[in-house]
Amino acid sequence: MAPFLSGLFGDKEVAEQFSISADMKAMLRFETALAKAQAKHGIIPNEAAETIENAIEHFEPIMPKLALNTPQDGLVVPELIRQLRSHIGEPYQEYIHYGSTSQDVIDTSLILRLSEIIKIFEERLNSVTASLNKLDETFGSNPLMARTRMQAALPASVSDRIAIWQNPNESNKKRLQNLKQAVLKLQLAGPIGKLEKLEDKGQAIRDEVANILNLNSTTKSWHTDRSALSEFVHWMMLVTGSLGKIGQDITLMAQQGIDEVAIEGGGGSSAMAHKKNPIKAEALVTLAKFTNIQASGFGQSIVHEQERSGVNWSLEWLLMPQICVAAGASMRVTNELLSSVSNMGNAK
Amino acid sequence: MAPFLSGLFGDKEVAEQFSISADMKAMLRFETALAKAQAKHGIIPNEAAETIENAIEHFEPIMPKLALNTPQDGLVVPELIRQLRSHIGEPYQEYIHYGSTSQDVIDTSLILRLSEIIKIFEERLNSVTASLNKLDETFGSNPLMARTRMQAALPASVSDRIAIWQNPNESNKKRLQNLKQAVLKLQLAGPIGKLEKLEDKGQAIRDEVANILNLNSTTKSWHTDRSALSEFVHWMMLVTGSLGKIGQDITLMAQQGIDEVAIEGGGGSSAMAHKKNPIKAEALVTLAKFTNIQASGFGQSIVHEQERSGVNWSLEWLLMPQICVAAGASMRVTNELLSSVSNMGNAK
Amino acid sequence: MAPFLSGLFGDKEVAEQFSISADMKAMLRFETALAKAQAKHGIIPNEAAETIENAIEHFEPIMPKLALNTPQDGLVVPELIRQLRSHIGEPYQEYIHYGSTSQDVIDTSLILRLSEIIKIFEERLNSVTASLNKLDETFGSNPLMARTRMQAALPASVSDRIAIWQNPNESNKKRLQNLKQAVLKLQLAGPIGKLEKLEDKGQAIRDEVANILNLNSTTKSWHTDRSALSEFVHWMMLVTGSLGKIGQDITLMAQQGIDEVAIEGGGGSSAMAHKKNPIKAEALVTLAKFTNIQASGFGQSIVHEQERSGVNWSLEWLLMPQICVAAGASMRVTNELLSSVSNMGNAK
Amino acid sequence: MAPFLSGLFGDKEVAEQFSISADMKAMLRFETALAKAQAKHGIIPNEAAETIENAIEHFEPIMPKLALNTPQDGLVVPELIRQLRSHIGEPYQEYIHYGSTSQDVIDTSLILRLSEIIKIFEERLNSVTASLNKLDETFGSNPLMARTRMQAALPASVSDRIAIWQNPNESNKKRLQNLKQAVLKLQLAGPIGKLEKLEDKGQAIRDEVANILNLNSTTKSWHTDRSALSEFVHWMMLVTGSLGKIGQDITLMAQQGIDEVAIEGGGGSSAMAHKKNPIKAEALVTLAKFTNIQASGFGQSIVHEQERSGVNWSLEWLLMPQICVAAGASMRVTNELLSSVSNMGNAK
Repeated sequence: MAPFLSGLFGDKEVAEQFSISADMKAMLRFETALAKAQAKHGIIPNEAAETIENAIEHFEPIMPKLALNTPQDGLVVPELIRQLRSHIGEPYQEYIHYGSTSQDVIDTSLILRLSEIIKIFEERLNSVTASLNKLDETFGSNPLMARTRMQAALPASVSDRIAIWQNPNESNKKRLQNLKQAVLKLQLAGPIGKLEKLEDKGQAIRDEVANILNLNSTTKSWHTDRSALSEFVHWMMLVTGSLGKIGQDITLMAQQGIDEVAIEGGGGSSAMAHKKNPIKAEALVTLAKFTNIQASGFGQSIVHEQERSGVNWSLEWLLMPQICVAAGASMRVTNELLSSVSNMGNAK
Repeated sequence: MAPFLSGLFGDKEVAEQFSISADMKAMLRFETALAKAQAKHGIIPNEAAETIENAIEHFEPIMPKLALNTPQDGLVVPELIRQLRSHIGEPYQEYIHYGSTSQDVIDTSLILRLSEIIKIFEERLNSVTASLNKLDETFGSNPLMARTRMQAALPASVSDRIAIWQNPNESNKKRLQNLKQAVLKLQLAGPIGKLEKLEDKGQAIRDEVANILNLNSTTKSWHTDRSALSEFVHWMMLVTGSLGKIGQDITLMAQQGIDEVAIEGGGGSSAMAHKKNPIKAEALVTLAKFTNIQASGFGQSIVHEQERSGVNWSLEWLLMPQICVAAGASMRVTNELLSSVSNMGNAK
Repeated sequence: MAPFLSGLFGDKEVAEQFSISADMKAMLRFETALAKAQAKHGIIPNEAAETIENAIEHFEPIMPKLALNTPQDGLVVPELIRQLRSHIGEPYQEYIHYGSTSQDVIDTSLILRLSEIIKIFEERLNSVTASLNKLDETFGSNPLMARTRMQAALPASVSDRIAIWQNPNESNKKRLQNLKQAVLKLQLAGPIGKLEKLEDKGQAIRDEVANILNLNSTTKSWHTDRSALSEFVHWMMLVTGSLGKIGQDITLMAQQGIDEVAIEGGGGSSAMAHKKNPIKAEALVTLAKFTNIQASGFGQSIVHEQERSGVNWSLEWLLMPQICVAAGASMRVTNELLSSVSNMGNAK
Repeated sequence: MAPFLSGLFGDKEVAEQFSISADMKAMLRFETALAKAQAKHGIIPNEAAETIENAIEHFEPIMPKLALNTPQDGLVVPELIRQLRSHIGEPYQEYIHYGSTSQDVIDTSLILRLSEIIKIFEERLNSVTASLNKLDETFGSNPLMARTRMQAALPASVSDRIAIWQNPNESNKKRLQNLKQAVLKLQLAGPIGKLEKLEDKGQAIRDEVANILNLNSTTKSWHTDRSALSEFVHWMMLVTGSLGKIGQDITLMAQQGIDEVAIEGGGGSSAMAHKKNPIKAEALVTLAKFTNIQASGFGQSIVHEQERSGVNWSLEWLLMPQICVAAGASMRVTNELLSSVSNMGNAK
């Protein structure tokens, strides 16, 4: 992202979930949970699980080696497991990550962090509801010309316009509750999706790991079936789109000659002191476009060949963080924008 | 679409729903239903509704005038209503389309035709299930090398691979049942989304029109809230993506040196008589990419400004037909491809 | 494309170049030229070339067989060559298409038709220049508020705004002259790009075929190097983008309260008799978005694997026609729109 | 970008040009050059230019205030100019940034940094040429099966395949030399693109500033004409596409059963010790897709409304850095990959 502008187009709170430390923490939670579940079901010794849990609690990754080997291996897990094994030592080092594969760790780490991000989203969308309600209470009865195809249509009210903004926000909140079930699920399937090393205990261990991690369990691999992730991405596009509509409308309302909205603290110009640019309204449109672009890229990553894909799985990694950050920024900026509205409609 | 190739990348049955006659028929169904519902609730005289219904039954649009005026008005409805009014004549001509707007007609016409398209999709996805099951019965126990990141991983079976293909197909069938509720709904909201001419009868008339047309009713305008359509488009992308994965896998399996699949009737070459190109497997990958491209464009049309948009609504019209046709083609070609498989796995 | 709207978003003249008959004619021109060049350089007998030329002149393809076999072979050429050979008969039937491959025929046919399309584009872009100049002469001295970030900035004139529209149009015309050199080139490379059957006469035959077809020659295959096509597609995106800007600006100028443009014959509404929607200005924005979407898809087809790709080559076929048609429509609609402007600026 | 993976998908050297310090340095170079040119042509006093130059040399921006105000103003320039003016003090503070606008500073800063990035690209593409030549010398005469549509076609050699890789690389190097002329140009046009404060000295000052900054001059504003930037973006897409083809081919050659390439130091697996994943070949395909996605987004930003756009200009800022970084990574990884090839072809 362009320097200086992360305060507008970025989002510290969401981005934190894509930091190295958050990723590391989530991957280690997965490995601990796996060992505990496997011990419970007799796949590995109890002492192994205890040793692994304890070792992970005191594990400090050697970052330079991770930075060196990750680009060689194409993912962080092989070197991480090497370091963990060396840290655990004999006789239990072979029991960590047992029967699992890199994609189990990385996918589940993503899901654990999406779980936190969804909480942020829920809170912010509730704030959007409240902000819109407040605007409606304050300015709702002011007259506003309804416009269709960019042309004056028929007289209406500020309330009518706000209802058009509120409706998709409410739908998106409901959608998220359904999506959570589909998205927040464990990935645990082993090298080729069959959990073959776990014998007849596979499903029980899956359920137990899911339980420990507070995720939904699954009955099969989703190594190549990225549809739930894609639905979540599409949902983020719907959200930034509906917030982008608010931004687009406010940008149009703020034009001189239209004058249907007043915003406190509009953006200053380096050359024209009289200007108050509707920066945050514009930012919402930019973020809607940006999210849509990245989401369309996520669509390009939907075909995962054979048992596990490298190319398109990696593509997800490049796109998912910035989609979540842009969606988070969009929700935050909407609340900032709405709370800076000092007049709406033509109260003449 | 490139000449000659509609038999591969096109779909006659789905495309038929985007013909002029199918669109016209659906728009006229809407106008009849609207008049009947308004008569029932006392908004227009019973005689008006009967006259309208009867006139529509015998209406033949003057095509050259539609072709001439549609590009001037930007949509077909104004000229269509002019012709209908002239056909109905006094004293009832003003009662047709009463309280409605072009977008009500065009959106509802689309939904009525999507309803037919969804039936086609349901049938074809069931065929995919059956085709995969049959392949599994016939070749499932054959050994197949599982491959991850394009490299040989561990021995597995044809059944394992087919399960990976079957899972998303089953999920997509379930998703469609939920989506139908959201997508197959009436648009009836009037010029600025408020149904203001229908006074306190608006909702009752909406429910009645929906009932006549066998669509779900709504309690508000979705003139600018295109999220349900977008979800349907995303679903079509998921479907073509999961079928594209089958095509991608088969293309890889068909390589000389890999030799994991045999296909009857592979494509001939104009220069190399020995070649049997896996045309339909390739076509599934092409269709997945094509659908994803168009779907990403649909995402670009998600921000509808003010009470009704011209630009992005028109963009939908250019994209939706080809998304549906490509999705239909993908399902049809999958069934053709799967039924031409004459061997799978390495039965050595 | 949505029914009825081809008069706005379609383009008859450009679309004609993607008809079956135009494609067929161009493919046959290639085969004739190839035979003549090969005879001239002693690769095939003179009598063979004469027979082929004569046969092609009187060839009528059996369309049902083309429609049947094209989807099986994945392209039209194998069946076309079968029919041509049968039509030519012994002893010369083997000399047609000699040393060539399907992609040579199909790519060169596209280029021959792009050559015609470029002529249409050149003419229309010259009309845009003339239309803008005329507007400038008529309204250029009228005052117009310059606007930045959708806010009133400083007083300017209609001439200033028109210059902003004119500049990229002039650049795009210059770009096209350079692009023509790169795009309008023969494809002739044989099954794996080496022209191996033509021995040491390969380059001479290439030059001769290019000369006959009035195309630039090449010294190597571009079976997998689609960069020149991609540049042409990008150019069409630049053009529709710069014309889309004109449309976007006019849409904003046409707002009530802004009132900086008057357009004759604006679009009628089915519900609001007072409205005059700026249909053609909107259409330019829609066409810019649509072209950009399809162009981004063309970008997705840029990686052609190994010696010749099936998947991404087919994807080109689905995209190129609609990109050219949308670009042609954009240029045509711009001229229509500009000639319907009856006032610009605030001449108060 | 996903943590840990910047060593594979990122590029330190290119990313450095998008750091705060590089941007700041370039913006200050612009302001110094502007003052000097204006003094030379008598628009501002010589003492003003000397004071400004001297002050800028010793200027340290107050970062927290930049971070605070940039999101309010929507861009960094207003606060930067405020700080610079305060730092310069009376009587010359008004002479900095005179007659200019934020977009002049930000666009020119981008161009100055693209100039550095292009040098990096030139060097790396030359390395690709050398790497390919070396591979050709070493393995060129080995036999390799040519493949079309993923099927064995005819016998060929490693040299033939390498030529297919080399050709677009050479074309792209030539294209870059032409593009440099179009891209590396000054932006200096003032608030509404007319340089109105500089009276009849506007063009002379433009030429002088360009001269000082070692950029091409222009005769008009390109505030809304982003076509040269878009061409550069498209060029980066062509480059990553042609390098992505190398990656795609190597991925296919590396399959067990095909065995046409051997790579030293392939990626390790956390679960399957025997695997050597072709990480860098895969990464090239991922980077090609990623660049194409971002480039298609840049296409979405092509329509800049009125005299200067906020929404789409901001969108450029979010996309351009990651396109350049991905292109740089693609070139770097290609060289790494090619130098790790230890065998090519079937030398049996």
